[in-house]
Amino acid sequence: MTAKLILLRHGESEWNAKNLFTGWVDVDINDKGKAEAQRGGELLAAEGLLPEVLFTSTLKRAIHTAEIALRTCDRHWIPVERSWRLNERHYGALQGKNKTEIRDEFGEDQFMLWRRSYDQPPPVLAADDKWSQYNDPQFADLPSEIRPRTECLKDVVFRMLPFWYDRIVPELSAGRTVLVTAHGNSLRALVKHLDGISDEAISGLNIPTGIPLFYELDEDMKPTVPGGRYLDPEAAKASIEAVKNQGKK
Amino acid sequence: MTAKLILLRHGESEWNAKNLFTGWVDVDINDKGKAEAQRGGELLAAEGLLPEVLFTSTLKRAIHTAEIALRTCDRHWIPVERSWRLNERHYGALQGKNKTEIRDEFGEDQFMLWRRSYDQPPPVLAADDKWSQYNDPQFADLPSEIRPRTECLKDVVFRMLPFWYDRIVPELSAGRTVLVTAHGNSLRALVKHLDGISDEAISGLNIPTGIPLFYELDEDMKPTVPGGRYLDPEAAKASIEAVKNQGKK
Repeated sequence: MTAKLILLRHGESEWNAKNLFTGWVDVDINDKGKAEAQRGGELLAAEGLLPEVLFTSTLKRAIHTAEIALRTCDRHWIPVERSWRLNERHYGALQGKNKTEIRDEFGEDQFMLWRRSYDQPPPVLAADDKWSQYNDPQFADLPSEIRPRTECLKDVVFRMLPFWYDRIVPELSAGRTVLVTAHGNSLRALVKHLDGISDEAISGLNIPTGIPLFYELDEDMKPTVPGGRYLDPEAAKASIEAVKNQGKK
Repeated sequence: MTAKLILLRHGESEWNAKNLFTGWVDVDINDKGKAEAQRGGELLAAEGLLPEVLFTSTLKRAIHTAEIALRTCDRHWIPVERSWRLNERHYGALQGKNKTEIRDEFGEDQFMLWRRSYDQPPPVLAADDKWSQYNDPQFADLPSEIRPRTECLKDVVFRMLPFWYDRIVPELSAGRTVLVTAHGNSLRALVKHLDGISDEAISGLNIPTGIPLFYELDEDMKPTVPGGRYLDPEAAKASIEAVKNQGKK
């Protein structure tokens, strides 16, 4: 028996469009993002790949995307669980900053290191910074010692995997089709784990917004097809190119 | 210590606007309903009455209303549980029928009996009827022996209360502010229970769409103020009048 896992990165957000580092700042999707979410739901319906349980981050852009996609394929009623462990990478002091300005100020090498290195987080964000979520009621139940103030991708893998093992895998093992709606970096962390991608090679992997990525998994939760399959491969390819160029003038 | 409970009837649906009996038919809210849902969220935010856990029916119009209201008051991230036990009353053979036409065909007395009597359900809906949900995947896990094919309000009280006792009361007892987003009749059933309204008097009680109804409950889960308090009493009064006139020409 194989398990069915669908990964969906949220549609374009207000800050994606403004070219800002977002991280844990809780911005909503924009009209383009809503259209992407609906298209995601249409792709699921067309494929007959209907989720039976939903996992999301606690961030608005992922939740809103899931709501639209599921309403579109008539699966609004399935059980849902949200966790900060699926949240986007915390971008530390870069949160709220313009990507192009950061690239200009710190240079291409430092910019790409912060953006794509596996183990080098940006500087810590001050708890009282304008873009800090340190006192946000959304995270009030999170012990302060594990509440991130910056993260590299390695940190995201570390805090995401417990949720994967404890909450998502049991649903897959029970034979339910699982939808995970999350973020560029929390999904890169999961794909790294699933496909056994090296710390080096993961820097070259980008996940497009709004296009469901389908994995069939064997009993050991290993992909039967490495890298999975995008439900719209052409659109995925075009979108991956666009993501690569973020921050370029 | 008192517990905080907020009841919210979904905003106007596509079928409310068309004056059709809806029941378990899974129609969405329309633009007016979306605006009502947003206003509901604004009222919660203005009052500082922020839900910590959400319960909804499995029907699209209640789920969509909750999504908009919670996004509006920045509570999209709270845990949610859905249950068919909070669904609208199953309207039996009346589902999909025009209210005015039913009134004309069967007369005012029969119309009001089906609509507002406590213990007289409409005729059963055939499992293969166009408006039956008998084979809907949404209810595939529901044993066929408890899957309703028509309901009176008494039936709704009977199937709703187990969910109230088992899932909602524990959250209230734990001190969490609870939002229940549901339907005209599932909320009438709950209000009947909370306020100890008689089988006869409940026929006169209507609940307006989109206006949060706040109950403060004592340790025995009895309202400290009978009938609770609408967050917008003026709008509630006007809307209750409008509901009363449904089906009239």
